[in-house]
Amino acid sequence: MTASFPVAPGGTLGVLGGGQLGRMLACAAARLGLKTHIYCPDEDRPAGQVAARETVAPYNDETALARFADVVDVVTFEFENVPAAAARFLDARVPVRPAPTALEVTQDRSAEKTFLRDAGIATTPFVTVDESTDLAVAVAALGGRTVLKTRRWGYDGKGQALALTPAEAAAAWAAIDHQPAIAEAFVDFSCEVSVIVARAADGTTACYDGVRNVHEGHILARSIVPAGLPPDTETAARAIAETIARRLDYVGVLAVEMFVVSGPEPGLLVNEIAPRVHNSGHWTLDACAVSQFEQHVRAVCGWPLGSPLRYANAVMENLLGSAVADWAALAAQPNTAVHIYGKHAVKSGRKMGHATRLFPLDTRVDGQI
Amino acid sequence: MTASFPVAPGGTLGVLGGGQLGRMLACAAARLGLKTHIYCPDEDRPAGQVAARETVAPYNDETALARFADVVDVVTFEFENVPAAAARFLDARVPVRPAPTALEVTQDRSAEKTFLRDAGIATTPFVTVDESTDLAVAVAALGGRTVLKTRRWGYDGKGQALALTPAEAAAAWAAIDHQPAIAEAFVDFSCEVSVIVARAADGTTACYDGVRNVHEGHILARSIVPAGLPPDTETAARAIAETIARRLDYVGVLAVEMFVVSGPEPGLLVNEIAPRVHNSGHWTLDACAVSQFEQHVRAVCGWPLGSPLRYANAVMENLLGSAVADWAALAAQPNTAVHIYGKHAVKSGRKMGHATRLFPLDTRVDGQI
Repeated sequence: MTASFPVAPGGTLGVLGGGQLGRMLACAAARLGLKTHIYCPDEDRPAGQVAARETVAPYNDETALARFADVVDVVTFEFENVPAAAARFLDARVPVRPAPTALEVTQDRSAEKTFLRDAGIATTPFVTVDESTDLAVAVAALGGRTVLKTRRWGYDGKGQALALTPAEAAAAWAAIDHQPAIAEAFVDFSCEVSVIVARAADGTTACYDGVRNVHEGHILARSIVPAGLPPDTETAARAIAETIARRLDYVGVLAVEMFVVSGPEPGLLVNEIAPRVHNSGHWTLDACAVSQFEQHVRAVCGWPLGSPLRYANAVMENLLGSAVADWAALAAQPNTAVHIYGKHAVKSGRKMGHATRLFPLDTRVDGQI
Repeated sequence: MTASFPVAPGGTLGVLGGGQLGRMLACAAARLGLKTHIYCPDEDRPAGQVAARETVAPYNDETALARFADVVDVVTFEFENVPAAAARFLDARVPVRPAPTALEVTQDRSAEKTFLRDAGIATTPFVTVDESTDLAVAVAALGGRTVLKTRRWGYDGKGQALALTPAEAAAAWAAIDHQPAIAEAFVDFSCEVSVIVARAADGTTACYDGVRNVHEGHILARSIVPAGLPPDTETAARAIAETIARRLDYVGVLAVEMFVVSGPEPGLLVNEIAPRVHNSGHWTLDACAVSQFEQHVRAVCGWPLGSPLRYANAVMENLLGSAVADWAALAAQPNTAVHIYGKHAVKSGRKMGHATRLFPLDTRVDGQI
């Protein structure tokens, strides 16, 4: 379709990906009077249940992609592992927001960390690992205890291996099948925080309050807001997120995960950028007038950004695998919003839903739900 | 389907009616992992765009109704003018919640007011009007200035006529085509409030805070919460709503509109009962963890009721007819959630969307948006 912004009510948002983030984007688009068309390689995924239309086809099916481009007003994606080639193919036909460069940068841990370094943003020290790398030397240079991560396709701790000494480095790389990787210094951080920032096409930005994240077994277990950061750290975290969005000329919602380091050189180290709505922003569905999902839809459709103001304190807990069986007990808890994603198969560690408990603004939140 | 409560995630909620209330119910059901199947006589209505499945068939098509009953776990309705016969037909096959009696009572203004009187709840004085009624006598008994309202199918001021004197009564009845009607005393009220109450199958109830409603041209223009009522009046209003829900053995969300009368006999007079989610509860979408829509889905699906706690003050304004053209300007207002219903034709007075502006709890709200 010919690009025309803002996309008015009645228009159609195309979303690549059919998971829970697409589902929540589709519901947010519906609030604004927009239709959603999901493009997804698999049948019967969560987003299709609430979308006006769905295309089930592989990401490399150019005929299906071209037809999809013909009937949507703008395209976005709900996860960062959508092939950049598909985004590029669509971008020649219909506006893709954020631009495919955001995918290219964030799909490759080495490119992402290099981009951050070039933008003057502190990250975990790292070395790009390939056949030519002397791994033992690299690991020694990083201080010994090192995490090897595949450059591509990693999420929720998948594609990672730990080397405690230079001598273990070769085995760690073998554990991730000698894929192109980066070796990262193991950082002894005091906590992990994330900032969800939205950037409109005109360069306006809006940051939600920083979130404290608790991981268990490499998967986000719990997000807590307010994060309880010193005001200077909160301000610095937002500035980092805004800088990243600006440097990527980003349009949409972006999440930045950071480590708060309290040691001899206190500060924030960026761990990861997610060019999409993010699990650590799910609390915005229940504690803000405009959620991260609606904010993303507003940004990519050329609407004004909404206010990220928060009306309650919140603790969001993921329902992983069989934890979703507790839905009835969770729904009976006070001031708790339960969100279930409509997935059929319950698998260990799979994100099946989440629950957000709200507290008045003057209540201390300690992360228990 | 065989009744089995609670309806677990993955189950299907059937909704009679395809308008904006059905659309918002479908999005609320999706949050809980439930699918929605809309049954509606017209194509391309707001709710179908976000529902997993849609049946387009008349309400008297028993084949279509029976098929619908076969594939849903529970049936509810999004407006009170669904033919009670359709609800009864379905109720023999699959649980219908609220029970069809709620439709029968509220579809007929005379039956509704008689029910209220029998329940000991004050209403506007009224007389049932039919061929045998001496209209001039009735109007004189009601104090002269009288509103004639058709017993059935009235909404948003449709099917109403005013008689200022007994002599005008015959003309007023002619203006509503001599349909079976009631004559209501014209009440000089200081404001109109509504209470949204939810009742679960086990008899548990949950009331949202009372709402002050401002009508313009017989259509709700604005809802304001808190309503600014004296605490005793707020308590009395909730007690009335809870009594009505209990007396109807109601399951689901129910709205009760009341007049606040400040004259020599101050008090609350019930104006109307709506056996469904209600326009004056739309602010709960943005100011509460669990909206009236989710609350209704929880109740009819046998889930525990959620908390009706409010985290912000709110002013909801309806976007009637061409007012929806202001969507972009409204979206740019601070702390404003814009909701557009996905209707194609803009007609004068038609509810096209609404906007809710949130304010911190300690802010005075005066109803301006």
